[in-house]
Amino acid sequence: MTLMPSDFVSANKEKYTAIRRFFHQIPEPGWEEYLTTWHIYQHLKKLDAPFTFTIGKDLLNSDSRLGLPSVQLLLAAHRRLEQTEADAGFIEKIAGGHTGLMVTLESGRPGVNSLFRFDIDGLPVREADSESHIPVKAGFQSTHPGYMHACGHDGHITTGLALAEFIALNKDSLNGRIQLLFQPAEEGCRGAKAVADRGWLKDVDHFVSGHIGISQYPVGTVSARTCDMLATSKLDIRFSGRSSHAANNPQEGRNALLAAANCALGLHGISRHSDGGSRVNVGSLNAGSGRNIIADKAKMMVELRGENDEINAFMLDQANRVTEGSALMYGVEHELQLVGHALAASCDEPLAERMEAVLKDCPLVTEVVHQLPLKASEDASVLMDAVQKSGGQATYLMFCSPTCGGHHNPEFDFDESVLSITMDVMARSLLALNGS
Amino acid sequence: MTLMPSDFVSANKEKYTAIRRFFHQIPEPGWEEYLTTWHIYQHLKKLDAPFTFTIGKDLLNSDSRLGLPSVQLLLAAHRRLEQTEADAGFIEKIAGGHTGLMVTLESGRPGVNSLFRFDIDGLPVREADSESHIPVKAGFQSTHPGYMHACGHDGHITTGLALAEFIALNKDSLNGRIQLLFQPAEEGCRGAKAVADRGWLKDVDHFVSGHIGISQYPVGTVSARTCDMLATSKLDIRFSGRSSHAANNPQEGRNALLAAANCALGLHGISRHSDGGSRVNVGSLNAGSGRNIIADKAKMMVELRGENDEINAFMLDQANRVTEGSALMYGVEHELQLVGHALAASCDEPLAERMEAVLKDCPLVTEVVHQLPLKASEDASVLMDAVQKSGGQATYLMFCSPTCGGHHNPEFDFDESVLSITMDVMARSLLALNGS
Amino acid sequence: MTLMPSDFVSANKEKYTAIRRFFHQIPEPGWEEYLTTWHIYQHLKKLDAPFTFTIGKDLLNSDSRLGLPSVQLLLAAHRRLEQTEADAGFIEKIAGGHTGLMVTLESGRPGVNSLFRFDIDGLPVREADSESHIPVKAGFQSTHPGYMHACGHDGHITTGLALAEFIALNKDSLNGRIQLLFQPAEEGCRGAKAVADRGWLKDVDHFVSGHIGISQYPVGTVSARTCDMLATSKLDIRFSGRSSHAANNPQEGRNALLAAANCALGLHGISRHSDGGSRVNVGSLNAGSGRNIIADKAKMMVELRGENDEINAFMLDQANRVTEGSALMYGVEHELQLVGHALAASCDEPLAERMEAVLKDCPLVTEVVHQLPLKASEDASVLMDAVQKSGGQATYLMFCSPTCGGHHNPEFDFDESVLSITMDVMARSLLALNGS
Amino acid sequence: MTLMPSDFVSANKEKYTAIRRFFHQIPEPGWEEYLTTWHIYQHLKKLDAPFTFTIGKDLLNSDSRLGLPSVQLLLAAHRRLEQTEADAGFIEKIAGGHTGLMVTLESGRPGVNSLFRFDIDGLPVREADSESHIPVKAGFQSTHPGYMHACGHDGHITTGLALAEFIALNKDSLNGRIQLLFQPAEEGCRGAKAVADRGWLKDVDHFVSGHIGISQYPVGTVSARTCDMLATSKLDIRFSGRSSHAANNPQEGRNALLAAANCALGLHGISRHSDGGSRVNVGSLNAGSGRNIIADKAKMMVELRGENDEINAFMLDQANRVTEGSALMYGVEHELQLVGHALAASCDEPLAERMEAVLKDCPLVTEVVHQLPLKASEDASVLMDAVQKSGGQATYLMFCSPTCGGHHNPEFDFDESVLSITMDVMARSLLALNGS
Repeated sequence: MTLMPSDFVSANKEKYTAIRRFFHQIPEPGWEEYLTTWHIYQHLKKLDAPFTFTIGKDLLNSDSRLGLPSVQLLLAAHRRLEQTEADAGFIEKIAGGHTGLMVTLESGRPGVNSLFRFDIDGLPVREADSESHIPVKAGFQSTHPGYMHACGHDGHITTGLALAEFIALNKDSLNGRIQLLFQPAEEGCRGAKAVADRGWLKDVDHFVSGHIGISQYPVGTVSARTCDMLATSKLDIRFSGRSSHAANNPQEGRNALLAAANCALGLHGISRHSDGGSRVNVGSLNAGSGRNIIADKAKMMVELRGENDEINAFMLDQANRVTEGSALMYGVEHELQLVGHALAASCDEPLAERMEAVLKDCPLVTEVVHQLPLKASEDASVLMDAVQKSGGQATYLMFCSPTCGGHHNPEFDFDESVLSITMDVMARSLLALNGS
Repeated sequence: MTLMPSDFVSANKEKYTAIRRFFHQIPEPGWEEYLTTWHIYQHLKKLDAPFTFTIGKDLLNSDSRLGLPSVQLLLAAHRRLEQTEADAGFIEKIAGGHTGLMVTLESGRPGVNSLFRFDIDGLPVREADSESHIPVKAGFQSTHPGYMHACGHDGHITTGLALAEFIALNKDSLNGRIQLLFQPAEEGCRGAKAVADRGWLKDVDHFVSGHIGISQYPVGTVSARTCDMLATSKLDIRFSGRSSHAANNPQEGRNALLAAANCALGLHGISRHSDGGSRVNVGSLNAGSGRNIIADKAKMMVELRGENDEINAFMLDQANRVTEGSALMYGVEHELQLVGHALAASCDEPLAERMEAVLKDCPLVTEVVHQLPLKASEDASVLMDAVQKSGGQATYLMFCSPTCGGHHNPEFDFDESVLSITMDVMARSLLALNGS
Repeated sequence: MTLMPSDFVSANKEKYTAIRRFFHQIPEPGWEEYLTTWHIYQHLKKLDAPFTFTIGKDLLNSDSRLGLPSVQLLLAAHRRLEQTEADAGFIEKIAGGHTGLMVTLESGRPGVNSLFRFDIDGLPVREADSESHIPVKAGFQSTHPGYMHACGHDGHITTGLALAEFIALNKDSLNGRIQLLFQPAEEGCRGAKAVADRGWLKDVDHFVSGHIGISQYPVGTVSARTCDMLATSKLDIRFSGRSSHAANNPQEGRNALLAAANCALGLHGISRHSDGGSRVNVGSLNAGSGRNIIADKAKMMVELRGENDEINAFMLDQANRVTEGSALMYGVEHELQLVGHALAASCDEPLAERMEAVLKDCPLVTEVVHQLPLKASEDASVLMDAVQKSGGQATYLMFCSPTCGGHHNPEFDFDESVLSITMDVMARSLLALNGS
Repeated sequence: MTLMPSDFVSANKEKYTAIRRFFHQIPEPGWEEYLTTWHIYQHLKKLDAPFTFTIGKDLLNSDSRLGLPSVQLLLAAHRRLEQTEADAGFIEKIAGGHTGLMVTLESGRPGVNSLFRFDIDGLPVREADSESHIPVKAGFQSTHPGYMHACGHDGHITTGLALAEFIALNKDSLNGRIQLLFQPAEEGCRGAKAVADRGWLKDVDHFVSGHIGISQYPVGTVSARTCDMLATSKLDIRFSGRSSHAANNPQEGRNALLAAANCALGLHGISRHSDGGSRVNVGSLNAGSGRNIIADKAKMMVELRGENDEINAFMLDQANRVTEGSALMYGVEHELQLVGHALAASCDEPLAERMEAVLKDCPLVTEVVHQLPLKASEDASVLMDAVQKSGGQATYLMFCSPTCGGHHNPEFDFDESVLSITMDVMARSLLALNGS
């Protein structure tokens, strides 16, 4: 006999609110979620369910990880983990920036394979310290200075842990295979590729994920169809030239600063595409050292987007050309590194319809919107695409909530009451897909 | 017994003034001096001297001619020549843009080889038609609309013809070998290379040339040392891309206009050189056709300069890089064509001292300036360099004159009284170098 | 009793094919349609109908005409007209580039006001002279060298004249007011504003226009709803600086060429807009004169577009800023002139539905498409907007036809059998709107 | 009776070598020379001479100080000084970045006024720590991490202190007025203007300064005429725009990064000047924060130079225009701050000849070179100019020494034996100018 999602939520919402607040205090950016992965693991371990764990190096195709942080930052994360009770085996699996984990429940009964995905990383944002900011007022602000869960992934972790407990409680009445993916490094679209390239999505029939916030409707507004997910490429571009004294022998320099300046203007001048929207931004440019020295180094952080994958590919092709040409103009070396990548995936209609039916059944949901636009990029698109290419279906839900100050902002916060909805909806989805 | 230069000048100055006015009326730009060459030839033919003639194709290394005009313009020049009494043999030597000629007098007596050089081309400048412009007032303005002797080369031709007559009159008392080079296509530094590459400068002991005007001192001021002759490269740069409709499919275009715009800015941004001055100018840029079409063609006229040949070479090297890089940035083809070239040659001191002595002897010369700067480029530098490389000496004189409106200007004119000085000085130089 | 459109078409299609071929031979670009207006007038004059004529200066708000040609071109057009039998009164109304005319039929019976609009200008395109080009083969190619009806406006004129005859034949059974507008200078979006600003659209209840070609479906495919009409601004940008000699005193120049190059790159770098598509194109750039002169003049032909009027306004605002800033950077004067302008108007649904019903009734129409995209700009949008702002409704039909080589191309041609459809549909529309 | 310079040097060279090593260990950059000024003061205080002290705020025109460091850095310097035995009065005079001092000896006897100037600041360069670097080997490397005497000003301080002692020893046989200026903030050309604007140079008859190193001739080579001192302007340029999300609403951003990129290219494209050499360098550009945010801040460090003051003024005028125009293009605010400034002053011939005679008398000087080029900029030029404008004469000597690794380099070091020469020459100069 199955536990009702509503009853589970009523009984556990304080507990999971506390769990969310715990994770809010230990935000770690992508590939540095060492503590985060450890604590997720601890929670899951305690559950009474025959879960199989796939952790870090076993989960990821190591070479497919995009946008890795510096060795210094990884070492700092490593030291954080060493200060817990984590055993050597666990540490070894995480070491070198291999974060995230997946649990699998094989029910032993026939049925579909469903994968529920939750992203776990924080952001390099310094959390607001004003009293009006609820995490401050309620005493659960970030304890990791300069970092913050400013996009609600702490809520996503919480939802995943709650779903795991619900699975444990109902394990005897579930069919098929169920997987919960706690994905690292969503921010910057850096982590999904390493999961997909490891081959985990091949046998998935249903992929379900979602996001808290985004559309600033009241809590209770939910949609089963997220649209306008932009394809994107995140690039780090570096130019390397030769310094010389600006008065004594300027002609001997190879000016990396001017190459970067020319490249930045050229990137923003890439042609519009008549098949749909595109975006380009050189978000930062840092070049040169002394005032009287021809600059020999320059670095730019760039992102490109397209309303479809072809437009995004066009942007990348042009960006390569602009970069190469700028380097040649100034006689400098260049390096263009892909540090993030997402696709323009969309939800599969049959699965979206089933999810929409789930939403309509959920008493906490006050309004079901047919579709809601993301107007941004989401790493989940890479997973959705992999599932769809293997014949499975995918959907991405939107759990609306006001977000004081907007995503990625020091003031960001969501209304915690949305957690009851995420927990309820995910439990119902599980039953709809894998219930008996 | 030798005729005195002063007597020759007194007796002939009206005649040569008329000759100058004749040539002023038939200005032809570089490689189009068909009539000009013919009329020079006619004058020289009539002289009583055993001159050997080297005309057009015999004078030039055909492939070394820079900046040739269009076939249409050459055909028009050809037709001009056909309307004279020029015989088929002469026409054949000039055909296809092979203008200019040289006369050689072998005295049969031992002595040095001296070459006197006079440039003969006009400019694509429409002559002023105001009454205050002396050629208008005196009725000898250009009859070739859109073209003008706006740099005084009509005076140089005249000086050369007078020197030829002076040689004829004194042919029995001259020693060694004497050559008068009537060089085509000085403007844009396009013609000298074809003469030098043919090997004519190898045995020259003394090279003498000069210019009327430049420094706006009164007539009578002369210098035997012209300095600050800048090395230069004249370039035509073309970009060729692909057109497309600016609204329907801009992404399919390859934008030659933007490549040229980027290249123009890049060329002007070439680094200063600490060894001396340099110059760069994109003098014209023409690109595109329709407003709603991505431009597939662009052309730029460019010039580079350097205070020495190394700096000029540096500029050219950079210009190549900037052009290639700009083409690559925009995915277009490029062509960079050298259409003119001069060096930074300087006068040889021993010869300059001898010329200075000549100047001091000339009663028409009121002031001898030690040296005068050109601050521009002169095709003669290529000839001077060839002579100097073969062990000869070269000098370049400056015959000052006011120049109403400046060189290359519709109002340009020099004071005709300077012709007495050029004739006198060249005759005296001849005697100093090759007299008995 | 009313004549049936089908009968009218059957009886007159050869005649109107001949008329189309006549106008194809006398293409005149915008504001130069002197002969064109005259011949339209001649045709209309002969009809037995109480038409009121509004010609040239009476039709247009003179100051609102955009993108006027040079005085030389207007004089040439004037001389063309003087060689016809046009009387002084007619010539006076056209003089100075006031082309186009409108006829009005006041039925005297109550009813709505319907305006049918036909554009009349040709293009500065040199017509193909290959035998495969039907106008060549059939002997009706352009007799105005360098100009061509390369967008089908000859077919539009023809349709308008046929509709006028149909009106004359049915004048006693029509209601309300009917107007036929023969609009000048559609190309470049230059003419409609002058008509709208004169106030002619204020009382119009129904505005009907359309285009032959565009979507390359077979003849017989028609749509009553043209969508994706892009708002646009056409700009001529001029920079005026100061010339100086590139070697002697470059520092005294004010470089208009570099200002234009910088501006061109800046314009193409205007930010994307998240509310929809936009376009920018610097279609031509011409700057400078001599290679060794700092360029003192530059001119660019530019166009901007937006999927809605706000985006187009954003583009224009940015373009102004980029132009001003570029001028300031190089110390030159600038002028930014609006030479064309269209809006992003769309069809009114109620009228479009009525037109769609007409299409479905027409036996020559083989397929009615719900809507077809223009993906370009159309001067009619300015008229549609004026009608809509005054409370009327507007629609713009698409009469598909293959167009050998595409619009604005030397090979352009449409299939003449489409004229039966345009004539039939317009006659039916007239009856639907103003029939008794 | 006067002490002989040679005897003084022989007797004191070890002492002053130790003093140099002491100052080498406490390098402080411009306007932060709190300890440095204090220790100079301490040395001078102990001398038996009726010196008048002019310290910090009394020496400088406060508002004329260029390129002040941040308040944080000034506070750190203040705290360093507070940890010495400096009394409140001294500290008050230095506070707020008023470093440097001058001592004046009024002999009471008639004679000229001579001012000897020594610069005292170090550089923000991290000193090399290899054993081959002599200060490491000999144990006197910088104790101020990240800062270093990498331009030899520790040697200049030493020379000034030695001259002070020599004056004290000879005070009864000196005439006129003698001043020793220990000038702050020479690096970046920031300090001299504040001294000059205070009016100290008005009555100076002879200004003598010099530099160790520069020309890499052996120790013993000296010149009394330093030439090619370039005028310069050091600029900090800031752009301030408005950030926005690069995907959601890029059109609302005001892109400071692109303004800076455009400005950097524009600055390097400033026209050459036909009157002489110039330089421009954007040494650093830092803009933007996040990859997906339109950058709202940008900062550039720039320097301009000219072979004469007019050319430098031309460069500054153009740089202002380029900056303003770039800001306007991108709709951002700009700030252009002058943080350093030097002139193109040259040595006065009569004084240079007297100094040359001194050099020839000095037995330690092995070769006197007529003149040596600086090919860089020197803050002393501002002082020289002020002296010359008031009718005095100025000269700037070059004391050659090899400089392992070049000026401003972590490996920089000069050969300490040059100190004997600087001490000897300065003492002899004093006697030549103010001896009895």
